[in-house]
Amino acid sequence: MGGDHGPQPVVEAAATALELYPQIEHIFLVGIEKELNARLATLSHDRSRLSIVHASEVVTMEDKAVESVRRKRDSSLSRAVDMVKDGQADAVLSPGNTGAFMAAALIKLRTLPGVERPGLATVMPSLHGKFLLLDVGANADARPQHLCDYGVMGEIYARQILGVANPRIGLFSIGTEEMKGNELTLEAHQLLKDSPMNFFGNIEGHDLFADKVDVIVTDGFTGNAVLKSCEATSRLVHAWMKEELSLNPLRKMGTWLAAGAFRDLKKKANPDEYGGAILLGANGICIKAHGKANANAICSALRVAADAITRQVNKLIIEEIRLTHEKKHPAQPAPTIAA
Amino acid sequence: MGGDHGPQPVVEAAATALELYPQIEHIFLVGIEKELNARLATLSHDRSRLSIVHASEVVTMEDKAVESVRRKRDSSLSRAVDMVKDGQADAVLSPGNTGAFMAAALIKLRTLPGVERPGLATVMPSLHGKFLLLDVGANADARPQHLCDYGVMGEIYARQILGVANPRIGLFSIGTEEMKGNELTLEAHQLLKDSPMNFFGNIEGHDLFADKVDVIVTDGFTGNAVLKSCEATSRLVHAWMKEELSLNPLRKMGTWLAAGAFRDLKKKANPDEYGGAILLGANGICIKAHGKANANAICSALRVAADAITRQVNKLIIEEIRLTHEKKHPAQPAPTIAA
Repeated sequence: MGGDHGPQPVVEAAATALELYPQIEHIFLVGIEKELNARLATLSHDRSRLSIVHASEVVTMEDKAVESVRRKRDSSLSRAVDMVKDGQADAVLSPGNTGAFMAAALIKLRTLPGVERPGLATVMPSLHGKFLLLDVGANADARPQHLCDYGVMGEIYARQILGVANPRIGLFSIGTEEMKGNELTLEAHQLLKDSPMNFFGNIEGHDLFADKVDVIVTDGFTGNAVLKSCEATSRLVHAWMKEELSLNPLRKMGTWLAAGAFRDLKKKANPDEYGGAILLGANGICIKAHGKANANAICSALRVAADAITRQVNKLIIEEIRLTHEKKHPAQPAPTIAA
Repeated sequence: MGGDHGPQPVVEAAATALELYPQIEHIFLVGIEKELNARLATLSHDRSRLSIVHASEVVTMEDKAVESVRRKRDSSLSRAVDMVKDGQADAVLSPGNTGAFMAAALIKLRTLPGVERPGLATVMPSLHGKFLLLDVGANADARPQHLCDYGVMGEIYARQILGVANPRIGLFSIGTEEMKGNELTLEAHQLLKDSPMNFFGNIEGHDLFADKVDVIVTDGFTGNAVLKSCEATSRLVHAWMKEELSLNPLRKMGTWLAAGAFRDLKKKANPDEYGGAILLGANGICIKAHGKANANAICSALRVAADAITRQVNKLIIEEIRLTHEKKHPAQPAPTIAA
């Protein structure tokens, strides 16, 4: 209910996803029943696999994260997370208030065994491919071990969902050399280097889109700053371009002839094309779609949710995190006593 | 000597700057005399205001920051900073290795009285104007007070050099609300709020270019991440655009007609157009031009250096920092004793 475009794109996406992805057993649409029913009535859909779960409240974009979980207990967002908690659903997806969604997930579901802090991971386009960036805002004050755990979780996601055979992991920093960075990244660099991961080393801002790695780990403050700054820059360049191209009739004519290029460029630069962000490390599959996501974007996000379930991303995370931590603190061998 | 294009753009810029800016008394070109002389010989210039100071070594982009200062004592970079230290020059400008330049400035010049950490400040374009971002990399592990000091220094720069009457100061964070951020920004927010500055509040990545403030303060890690990510995104969009526009003859024709728009767009998005970055808080005017800067960009950076000298930016910083710190820790009134 709480996305920028209300329930419409979610309802549409659910109907389409059931058609496209037979691996989805059932979709529950959680929200104000009357509104959802009215929208569903106009769409052809598989009634046996789609049902509505009523929730009377809506978390708005203005609601405060933790407060919304405590006060709006019958919100669509809270109820949807509850369904995962109670084992009625395997995954939850929301295009609503990001902070509120993460708070609900963390408070109700908690983290996977061994994971101290989940990381919000988003797929970003690069010059000739894509990469996973995490954390983009779940945890603003990260410790070195969290960044290393993000590497483990990001690697599993890249392998299972993005289909990368041997994902290269990069650490976001302010220089490519090992000794460049802040206290957090210098220590995280050592942890990643000593881990069994395919660690590439530092990635600095200039190389973000250079297809050097498949996963970039960073703290939630920096990740959020980088993600939003990139989106803002893309919008700025597009706004400038629009201004420049409409400045005189000759330019307008040129724009008209090359219209296809601008349409395709917009599509490439549009975050909607890249589905949702996933809260890796939460004890349940939690997918955050963009607030402005259209039905197409939400439909891809639903596919990601289904893939994460069938490819057992969370089970793999539990195993890998345990292995990584064990290697760091190996169990003491049982003492042998010669008497 | 150490910029990406060697001394050529610097020599050209110096000759032009002396013509354009009568307020510049003298420019010293520091570097390998033979090379500089050969380049000067081809340019008309005011011989009475331009001289060459020989330095036998060159700091390369690969040299390590602190090591380069210790080992290459006769580098053009070190010698130029020495001239400020020894009072032979009021300002130093370099398009060379940023880390080495900052290290030389900090080791040789140290900071202005009251300033604990200098901040590297750069002017960035916004949708309809520009803003100053600092720190973009001088100090990767900042404390809240440093961010507050960056506000004081940035305000003076915006007023004196950018000509903004009452600069609005923003704190970069991951949400606009006061309670959004990490430990560092939450504390810095309070300091800025309690200061006499025209503090706007938090600025998040999405609002970077929205002309809401004139100065944005952040720690050197985040600032560097944001600056480079923005530059990388701009390059990415331009590379995609080029690809799309050359995909078929129709698009190529359109591009040809609208060529002026792309030329102007490139100019707007080109960091060269925005002169150099200034190391605010160093005990001497230190301007870092972009490594790829052309003569035009270096010439604007020389104007900034001259303005910073004539408008006494550093004197104002010392005064304002003292006032701000005094307000925080007011001197105890002399006790009166009734006996």
